[in-house]
Amino acid sequence: MVEDVCIFCELGKGNSRTIFEDKHCYVIPDRFPSQKGHLLVIAKDHHESILTAPNKLVEHMAIVAKKFAIQSKKKHKSEGIVITTNAGKAAGQLIMHYHIHVIPIPLNVPKGFIPHRELTEPEAQILKRLLKS
Amino acid sequence: MVEDVCIFCELGKGNSRTIFEDKHCYVIPDRFPSQKGHLLVIAKDHHESILTAPNKLVEHMAIVAKKFAIQSKKKHKSEGIVITTNAGKAAGQLIMHYHIHVIPIPLNVPKGFIPHRELTEPEAQILKRLLKS
Repeated sequence: MVEDVCIFCELGKGNSRTIFEDKHCYVIPDRFPSQKGHLLVIAKDHHESILTAPNKLVEHMAIVAKKFAIQSKKKHKSEGIVITTNAGKAAGQLIMHYHIHVIPIPLNVPKGFIPHRELTEPEAQILKRLLKS
Repeated sequence: MVEDVCIFCELGKGNSRTIFEDKHCYVIPDRFPSQKGHLLVIAKDHHESILTAPNKLVEHMAIVAKKFAIQSKKKHKSEGIVITTNAGKAAGQLIMHYHIHVIPIPLNVPKGFIPHRELTEPEAQILKRLLKS
């Protein structure tokens, strides 16, 4: 069976983990966080990547990513933040729907702090409360 | 002796490797490319990172990064592009002046294709011609 449903289109219609949403994008925790507090800023409309997304949306999502980077740095007391978007499978894009990663980086904690362990529902809700406050 | 000159402020005043520039930012090849064609989009004004840069500049540099990502993907025939900005030393930011990395990723080529080998002047000029055309 061919899977032709886009998971990010579906999640954008509403889900219990959403931390923020507006007309153009929404923010949820990454299901497989590379660090504690790893967020995704996801376009509501379907565009394969930043390369094919309209400039207005790219501008808007950059500002939302910045806002949550500042918020995450403060709330997680992290020492750094990585903001990244991957375009194409070769670049590590797993879901072919435009999204930006916002990843708080603690000091002196090696990469892969929580390597590909699936986020639990309680962790997702704690993160949501933390960043909404 | 304390080094108090910001290298990205200095390079923004003009240098032979500049591929693109406007009033707000400029584009040069990364001096230590992680992949062939690795570019930097750099703010002309000094801001420590995206976290402290004005929203208008963040929006503008996102569009310039997108433009060069599209251009790089085409010109290098790469299979993917990573666009990333790091804020803070813990996140891997080496120069404390807001910049965005645009990194073409070839298919089936492991990361670190040109790992921290310094870009030569001829390579820089070839890249400049390639992306200006």
